[in-house]
Amino acid sequence: MTLEIPEVVINRLPVYARALAELAARGDTVVSSQALGELLDVTPAQIRKDLSYFGRFGKQGRGYNVASLLNKLREILGIDRQWRLCLVGVGRLGQAIAEYGGFGPQGFEIVAAFDASPDVVGRQVGGVTIHDIEELDTFLRHARVDIGIVAVPASAAQGVVDKLVEAGIRAILNYAPITAHVPRDVSIRHIDPVLAMQSMTFYIKRAEPGGK
Amino acid sequence: MTLEIPEVVINRLPVYARALAELAARGDTVVSSQALGELLDVTPAQIRKDLSYFGRFGKQGRGYNVASLLNKLREILGIDRQWRLCLVGVGRLGQAIAEYGGFGPQGFEIVAAFDASPDVVGRQVGGVTIHDIEELDTFLRHARVDIGIVAVPASAAQGVVDKLVEAGIRAILNYAPITAHVPRDVSIRHIDPVLAMQSMTFYIKRAEPGGK
Repeated sequence: MTLEIPEVVINRLPVYARALAELAARGDTVVSSQALGELLDVTPAQIRKDLSYFGRFGKQGRGYNVASLLNKLREILGIDRQWRLCLVGVGRLGQAIAEYGGFGPQGFEIVAAFDASPDVVGRQVGGVTIHDIEELDTFLRHARVDIGIVAVPASAAQGVVDKLVEAGIRAILNYAPITAHVPRDVSIRHIDPVLAMQSMTFYIKRAEPGGK
Repeated sequence: MTLEIPEVVINRLPVYARALAELAARGDTVVSSQALGELLDVTPAQIRKDLSYFGRFGKQGRGYNVASLLNKLREILGIDRQWRLCLVGVGRLGQAIAEYGGFGPQGFEIVAAFDASPDVVGRQVGGVTIHDIEELDTFLRHARVDIGIVAVPASAAQGVVDKLVEAGIRAILNYAPITAHVPRDVSIRHIDPVLAMQSMTFYIKRAEPGGK
């Protein structure tokens, strides 16, 4: 019965969950949609509407129980589990991703890394061994991997995405600066700081004297 | 007259511009909204509607002129300029950002870096010297900086954002895993791979046997 939930709603749920975890950590037990909205710069109506897709939470005028709403969101999103990632591309960016300390505590574990360069194959990065990219397919058919991280150059990215999809990966985090294509039953998210900045320069430009 | 353009539209324009640049690079001179939509996994109607905010492009049944639409988008977004960035936080993540080769060719130049740790202050990273974060405010009041990049730990991030805003920065790229607050006239974009993955695990979970 969750088939018709808009993707934008799903995308906001992790933000709500993170805010609730912060409130729980500082000892808050109840939060109003108003207060949660102020924390996140969204309207209370938006929060109530988003959550209404998943059932009834909170009582009119009483706010949400922080712990129970957080648990429910964690369950809906699968945040309460361990997820296994494989990293493809261990150049400078891939290395930073592998060594990033923020994944583990959130349940995301990089279980393998792959690269095409003989210079790095066989080395260790972030606690895992870097394998030859030629072994990616065989690895994916024998080990459980939930999410593929693509950190190869733009020219190689679609090829890697295709390989991941063919091997059955259903979620891809793409750091390469291309709009990679995936079938409809595969999720993809793009991490692209250049596009993010280009969407802000519009506003900087407009705010300048003579801007419109 | 551009005041009422939805932010989601502005956010899509850099993606259109990037696709048009790729088409131009391979020698294409005309593209239909249909073909552009297929490249980007959006509907042709969406593209036509987004572009209609900025005037009339292309002729019915003839498609868009790639070069002129690209130039127009570059002008609208300010992609045709050089933008000056300052980086705050030069830990492992900040270092990867400073050394990332993808900013320069797109007109984004990191002109200064700041950190609180005496271990890194005075060192070079990505061609710039790392300054003491205590000097951030003075620096911003004397040098032109368009965009501030925040790559400090979560606990320090809001404080850094506030400093940037107070010093007049109107666009912030935030890598810290918090929902940082900014005044309405300041743009902020969050780069957060954990949130991106948490929005995909919902779909992985639902596709599992017994998922709903």
